[in-house]
Amino acid sequence: MSDRIVGILGGMGPAATADLYSEIIRLTPALVDQDHLRVLIYSNPKIPDRTHAILHGGEDPVPELVASARLLERAGAGILAIPCNNAHCFLPQIQQAVAIPILNMIEETCRILRSCEPRVSKAGLLAASGTVDSRIYENIFALGDIQVLVPTRDEQVRIHAAIQDVKRGSREPAVAEVFHSAGAALMARGAESVVLGCTEIPLVFDPARAGYAALNPTRALAAAAVEWALGTRS
Amino acid sequence: MSDRIVGILGGMGPAATADLYSEIIRLTPALVDQDHLRVLIYSNPKIPDRTHAILHGGEDPVPELVASARLLERAGAGILAIPCNNAHCFLPQIQQAVAIPILNMIEETCRILRSCEPRVSKAGLLAASGTVDSRIYENIFALGDIQVLVPTRDEQVRIHAAIQDVKRGSREPAVAEVFHSAGAALMARGAESVVLGCTEIPLVFDPARAGYAALNPTRALAAAAVEWALGTRS
Repeated sequence: MSDRIVGILGGMGPAATADLYSEIIRLTPALVDQDHLRVLIYSNPKIPDRTHAILHGGEDPVPELVASARLLERAGAGILAIPCNNAHCFLPQIQQAVAIPILNMIEETCRILRSCEPRVSKAGLLAASGTVDSRIYENIFALGDIQVLVPTRDEQVRIHAAIQDVKRGSREPAVAEVFHSAGAALMARGAESVVLGCTEIPLVFDPARAGYAALNPTRALAAAAVEWALGTRS
Repeated sequence: MSDRIVGILGGMGPAATADLYSEIIRLTPALVDQDHLRVLIYSNPKIPDRTHAILHGGEDPVPELVASARLLERAGAGILAIPCNNAHCFLPQIQQAVAIPILNMIEETCRILRSCEPRVSKAGLLAASGTVDSRIYENIFALGDIQVLVPTRDEQVRIHAAIQDVKRGSREPAVAEVFHSAGAALMARGAESVVLGCTEIPLVFDPARAGYAALNPTRALAAAAVEWALGTRS
């Protein structure tokens, strides 16, 4: 399995891609360099804004997503991971353009939730507005009999703005607090778990300050990539 | 310049490569994803141990280094950065195998030291034993009229072991303290600056605890890559 190359189609944004890469390193059992996995990352931040395309008919990100996926496939990647929840709305088009499989971060997250005891039937979603409006989490979680609770319209505006702040490089406690309190509001409304459904959110989310544990899809994606590379997933 | 792709030949080790990538992100002026640079990273931790090859005639890392450089070139990288000081001993052989230029992290570090006021004439070196014994820092710094002070034999054994600890994932203060005190010993012997000449060291080195500022070649390499991608270097 040591020749397997994990491909990461990233740059949406770059810091979230660095976070996925770090999670993969952390989840790989290794005593020396050579125990680690081959990973090929194309951080392509020039991919047009996903939320803008979904909500406002902005430039289509698919051509650049497809070109990036093909670059990774040609270079030898055996699987693709895409550390951007919003980009998963375009997964069918990307998958159609390459022969290698693409891990689905949202399905991986659902898989983890379904293995929880006690069973989770309602999950709260903190995500970019394009992800929320696309209903991609609702559609995939419905297959696992998990209902998705989304923030109120006002809260969603604040969450999306805070995500842009993280993309700008902010790591301020006030920005993290937007996510902490929005998640708490979802729990007060009956969510049994909160999903950090934008890969920028784990960069600032602090469970100790939030007062509750949240599910991190970036970590679920990293775990799936490591299992694939080590051949430990059936 | 927005089509320029920075290639990173990494995995030696992976956490050091993640650190270079994070430094590039941090040094790029960006308000939104699309302001960031295209970066292609091949993290190939299967490259044989560099120090083992230099000191003990271990497996030659050149074939795997060359194959990785060629993969990045074929995939579209316009320049290469290699976040491993030790691997720089093999730079001529890698450069011979590709048409794109390779940034030299040690020359970039020397360039920064030469711009210091007051002038630095003696620099202390904390590095893996292969880097120290190869005298690559001495040879490059000599061109900039900077003398290199290396640790005593006993200190060097401790430094090399601490580097292996970092590669194993340790972030313990006791490991960092090996670097802090070895650097302090070099300053006591007349070094005006200490160079963190192994890319694992900045992962744990803490200037506040060490009590002195040290020069970080990973950051020098990141700055050079950003300048190349933005077209701001003459």
